Amino acid sequence: MAREQLMETARGVYRSYGFSPIDTPALEYTEILLGKGSDESDKQLFRFQDQGNRDVALRFDLTVPFARFAAQHFNDIGVPFKRYHIGTVWRGEKPQQGRYREFMQCDFDTIGTESNAADIETLMVIHDLLNAIGFEKFGIHVNNRLILNGMLEQLELSDRSVEILRVLDKLAKIGRDKVLAEMTEQVGVAAEQAEQVLDLVSATGSSNEILKNLASSLQGNEKGLLGVSRLEELFRACKTAGIPEDRVKLDVSIARGLDYYTGTIYETFLTELPGIGSICSGGRYDNLAELFTKQKLPGVGASLGLDRLLAAMEELGLVESASTPAPVLIVQFVEERLGDYQRVARQLRKNGISAEVYPDARPMKKQLKYANRKGFQIAVIAGEDEFATGKWLVKDLRSSDQSEVSETELCAAIQTLLEDSP
Amino acid sequence: MAREQLMETARGVYRSYGFSPIDTPALEYTEILLGKGSDESDKQLFRFQDQGNRDVALRFDLTVPFARFAAQHFNDIGVPFKRYHIGTVWRGEKPQQGRYREFMQCDFDTIGTESNAADIETLMVIHDLLNAIGFEKFGIHVNNRLILNGMLEQLELSDRSVEILRVLDKLAKIGRDKVLAEMTEQVGVAAEQAEQVLDLVSATGSSNEILKNLASSLQGNEKGLLGVSRLEELFRACKTAGIPEDRVKLDVSIARGLDYYTGTIYETFLTELPGIGSICSGGRYDNLAELFTKQKLPGVGASLGLDRLLAAMEELGLVESASTPAPVLIVQFVEERLGDYQRVARQLRKNGISAEVYPDARPMKKQLKYANRKGFQIAVIAGEDEFATGKWLVKDLRSSDQSEVSETELCAAIQTLLEDSP
Repeated sequence: MAREQLMETARGVYRSYGFSPIDTPALEYTEILLGKGSDESDKQLFRFQDQGNRDVALRFDLTVPFARFAAQHFNDIGVPFKRYHIGTVWRGEKPQQGRYREFMQCDFDTIGTESNAADIETLMVIHDLLNAIGFEKFGIHVNNRLILNGMLEQLELSDRSVEILRVLDKLAKIGRDKVLAEMTEQVGVAAEQAEQVLDLVSATGSSNEILKNLASSLQGNEKGLLGVSRLEELFRACKTAGIPEDRVKLDVSIARGLDYYTGTIYETFLTELPGIGSICSGGRYDNLAELFTKQKLPGVGASLGLDRLLAAMEELGLVESASTPAPVLIVQFVEERLGDYQRVARQLRKNGISAEVYPDARPMKKQLKYANRKGFQIAVIAGEDEFATGKWLVKDLRSSDQSEVSETELCAAIQTLLEDSP
Repeated sequence: MAREQLMETARGVYRSYGFSPIDTPALEYTEILLGKGSDESDKQLFRFQDQGNRDVALRFDLTVPFARFAAQHFNDIGVPFKRYHIGTVWRGEKPQQGRYREFMQCDFDTIGTESNAADIETLMVIHDLLNAIGFEKFGIHVNNRLILNGMLEQLELSDRSVEILRVLDKLAKIGRDKVLAEMTEQVGVAAEQAEQVLDLVSATGSSNEILKNLASSLQGNEKGLLGVSRLEELFRACKTAGIPEDRVKLDVSIARGLDYYTGTIYETFLTELPGIGSICSGGRYDNLAELFTKQKLPGVGASLGLDRLLAAMEELGLVESASTPAPVLIVQFVEERLGDYQRVARQLRKNGISAEVYPDARPMKKQLKYANRKGFQIAVIAGEDEFATGKWLVKDLRSSDQSEVSETELCAAIQTLLEDSP
């Protein structure tokens, strides 16, 4: 129930920004998926031959299939095109807390525009989404790959940028020393240069200060300066639009593991639970669809890690315990009266009150025990006496108060009880 | 959007009856799925070895994984247990109209009770679901496997019941002659007996008449008579609970292809589109979980064929054409004002009005063309003049009327326009 609640919240926020739902198949031809994420995602593919000897695989994310879909249906969908997709993805990795082999992602993307407005909106959606879920304390970390690539250009390391950014992406997890070691030993970067890269990405201070320093150190590097100015514009627009400033933070060290990002990058951390990792991540990918189409199809988007977030919410005690979506249980007292119990239940449902009829005419005590275990709030009871007088017994399971209510007033009485809920 | 609308409707109806959402993995160990549906579903499995050399397969329905789940977690979930599950299933069959290799099912099930109350409720859920989707003209066909098995017992054909029922299930599709031929040639039933079976299941008349005749022809056969009395009780309770009588129909010929059904069986047909087949089917399966647990775990449920229903609705012209979930487009007129456009958009969203900001400062004509194509209802426009006076232009795209509205009154004005919508 908590998971479905999260999905509903996500759908609501995405729609409120004008994103439409699109679903693509879980199975893609393997060639569509290979080489799009990283060496790791290639290795982790659930891949097989289907009945028609087609080489197919289960998707490892929702972005690559969407790029394939958009390229294929370019002429029908028109651009700009905004879609969200809540779906399952598969990665054959070692399961651990909040990480599973089969898990659900909640993606939203805007394609067909290079405008920074879409990057800025992406951040706002992440913000409003976390807010709508009920979080107050979180930080959205942003960066721009153009800045990282600009730096690497200046250091003449462009030819190894993919490998360097992959290592850099682990900074928060494994620390400076190990990143230095990997950069020098595995990627073959000179120790001095590796130190320079790490100094640049570890700059501290306010976002504005860091951006000002970056602008001067990247002087003359067009790519890097474009990254700086897009981030400056992002901070400005967020402020004007009313996003609290302490929730958006420049972090030059984040690079994201996936190779397809080209611009703005997002990661989101819960202040009270940073160890769980980023719960909403994404970025701009201007070249991804080029693998499928000659059309230029730039995009930007992010993905809510639903199952990881749920693990976090469980740890923070934010998941409710009731296991029924219905507040009302109608006790089955007289078996022959089933039609009447269902008649009254249907009346309640028509008035927007979910109601379950217990399926067996078991002893009342047993049925009420079931009601309490499942978290029902109200039990409605009628035996032959009640049918004779037309008055039903309404029992508030939270307070144990009970009262007699005539059948015609049942809906109103239950509505009142539910509204007065503690 | 239409598909997601259907899923939301289904979730709403299921919850209103007290069903809770449960999700199980798409991949199961192959041994869990093999031999549970039919020879056909075994052949149609998408099956492979995963990275750990486990023999796994994609589920072909949601019922078998649920039975596995319920058996495994029997002590935690408690019974009776009611769940719904909207999820993807895979069958390697030949795609045709409304039938796909990968498609979505919307299942609901009640397990842990043999009570007929659960069978009756299952029918009511199907009824209320079709109604909530917007259908008025449909028929829910019911039968009970006990009646069919009782007949076969009387004819001393019990040893071949699985094969006979599989052939019988094709009656509506291939007709009496072909069923007779298959029964005699493939299953080896004597021609006279095959005729008798077909006469019994082809009885016409009112449901009550047919049940009365069945009761007398099944005299002395306990199993068959139990099937009759459970259906009688179903018709009685449905009437009392207010289900229109013409929507529930006894059809002794339906058997359902899947082997695991043991009692009541449901199929649902759209009066205006019978050719599409049953769009909501199910039944009682009292032995399915026995393959996974020693606990007795009887169950009953049904499944809405979402994608088939969508195909039907498209054919009936019931699918709307708008391709945006947001009624309001905010035109981007001055690029530097993006923060302000988003500020106003966020205000609208906070008031429950979905609003999209166009991502590029393109010519107004182009942005309005986009708005019309996507089905937006209202465009909101502000250039430097408007920012100076604090008045925004609100354009009703349906009527082409436009008016100036001060920023503080924007939400209210747009709300009024949307409520007045034609």
